[in-house]
Amino acid sequence: MSYKQDLLDCYNRIRPYIHRTPIMSSRSINELVDAEVVFKCENFQRTGSFKMRGASNAILSLSKEQQQKGVVTHSSGNFAQAVALGAKSIGVTANIVMPNTAPKVKQSAVKGYDGIITFSEPTIEARSAAATKIEQEVGASFLHPSNQIQVIIGQGTATMELLEDHPDLDYILTPVGGGGLVAGTALAAYHFGNVCRVIGCEPENADDASRSFKSGNIEKNTTANTIADGLRTELGDVNFPIIKQHVEDIMLIDEEAIKNAMFMVWERMKILIEPSSAVPLAALIKNKERFKNKKIGIVVSGGNVDVSNFTK
Amino acid sequence: MSYKQDLLDCYNRIRPYIHRTPIMSSRSINELVDAEVVFKCENFQRTGSFKMRGASNAILSLSKEQQQKGVVTHSSGNFAQAVALGAKSIGVTANIVMPNTAPKVKQSAVKGYDGIITFSEPTIEARSAAATKIEQEVGASFLHPSNQIQVIIGQGTATMELLEDHPDLDYILTPVGGGGLVAGTALAAYHFGNVCRVIGCEPENADDASRSFKSGNIEKNTTANTIADGLRTELGDVNFPIIKQHVEDIMLIDEEAIKNAMFMVWERMKILIEPSSAVPLAALIKNKERFKNKKIGIVVSGGNVDVSNFTK
Repeated sequence: MSYKQDLLDCYNRIRPYIHRTPIMSSRSINELVDAEVVFKCENFQRTGSFKMRGASNAILSLSKEQQQKGVVTHSSGNFAQAVALGAKSIGVTANIVMPNTAPKVKQSAVKGYDGIITFSEPTIEARSAAATKIEQEVGASFLHPSNQIQVIIGQGTATMELLEDHPDLDYILTPVGGGGLVAGTALAAYHFGNVCRVIGCEPENADDASRSFKSGNIEKNTTANTIADGLRTELGDVNFPIIKQHVEDIMLIDEEAIKNAMFMVWERMKILIEPSSAVPLAALIKNKERFKNKKIGIVVSGGNVDVSNFTK
Repeated sequence: MSYKQDLLDCYNRIRPYIHRTPIMSSRSINELVDAEVVFKCENFQRTGSFKMRGASNAILSLSKEQQQKGVVTHSSGNFAQAVALGAKSIGVTANIVMPNTAPKVKQSAVKGYDGIITFSEPTIEARSAAATKIEQEVGASFLHPSNQIQVIIGQGTATMELLEDHPDLDYILTPVGGGGLVAGTALAAYHFGNVCRVIGCEPENADDASRSFKSGNIEKNTTANTIADGLRTELGDVNFPIIKQHVEDIMLIDEEAIKNAMFMVWERMKILIEPSSAVPLAALIKNKERFKNKKIGIVVSGGNVDVSNFTK
């Protein structure tokens, strides 16, 4: 499967529901890494993250009959908000299973988009069971944040936009969590880039993708103790084959470097990015010799930071 | 003096040296205050603040002979950076007098723009004396951050751009520190707005402008203990008459409200703004009945935050 036409169809399908986000750059960061870096700012996407792309595509790809029965996902993060707003915009009911420990601010965001929240115990098993129950009872379609092909394709559209404005990128760097963004990016770079290589960037403290990439099999996280809260998840059987085929490397980054890169972007670019989004810049800084004089795109995955976690 | 032609001339003069900054809005902030708010994002201006406008205009308004002898200012903040980069872009030597206590990051910023730093003791008298010495020795022209007409006019150009895109603003709110921004804004709103009123917003802890506005005379700060570090300065005899004539009101805001408004913009708009720039939004929230259903512009004065001051 090449997915080129799927990407093009997807982009036409979701365009009315997403923002074409701005692309920014920083002279001082370019000087620091001795390369030309452009940031695709999905922190300015609707709901504050790229997840809006994949969620919209997945919902729009359902049949009318399926849409009438609604969708369901279990997430407490960016995908929950994206499904809620995407569904609302398209006129579909969104059921969101959330752990009963989810922060009030995340609950409010989903409610603000008219998502119907079902609380569960905060275990994967409980959340999954609650979602399955909704699937069975109302016939809602289950949407996975990273391991469904229509979600993956949707995430690739950020790179289509990026390459339209910057067709000469040598590399694109993205964070890796569940693997949907890096897989979609790799497909888009393969089909629309001019020898544009894609590298996934992952916290050392949640290194399942790096180990999977090396072993060739899906490995599990042994810890998920990272400030990059969007990246605590694991690869899946739909995105991993794409990653194996189209991603050049997975780079690992320590917590201190993630935090420093995040504050660097805040201070120098005057934009708020979430910790996950700082991982690629941290990787670029750490491996600057490899990227010297290259033109590099970074997908800034989102800007949903609970600032009080970092501020005094 | 009406200054209308001066504003137009100024804008043509400085245009090649400044960014036309983006205008942003936030649905959730609109809902919160029950009004339509547009933010003129001077945090994305060159050097990270609106000061680039006034500094560029002041330098470009000098004669060729004056320009050859350079300029001098005493500042450790945004105006220093603006003078340094403005002068460099125009091909003029910039002498910056800084207190020997100025943070390294501010020193580096000025050096990065080829500004020549002269250190002085950290008192107003010492800084002023050091600047006067440079004026006398090399014939450099002194530039004041807020109390020179060409600087004031320059700051007004942010509002000219804002009104070009949003001619129907009922109010424009700006921070008040030295008074240059609010005076320039008021001149521009008077000449290019459609009955657009300007309100200055000031920290309670540095309330010279509010007291001056009431008494009709320039009053001094009794304290300048505010996180809005750009607003610790005082009004001057050039901008105060303009403020008296064209500004509708000065609103006072407490420290907690400033901080809350700042983090609100960071979190909801995904942009980094400095504490001073949060004062107008804090004023809008505090006085929301007054602004209900109005269309309001806020000049986001800058984004130069030392994030480590707020982060843990």
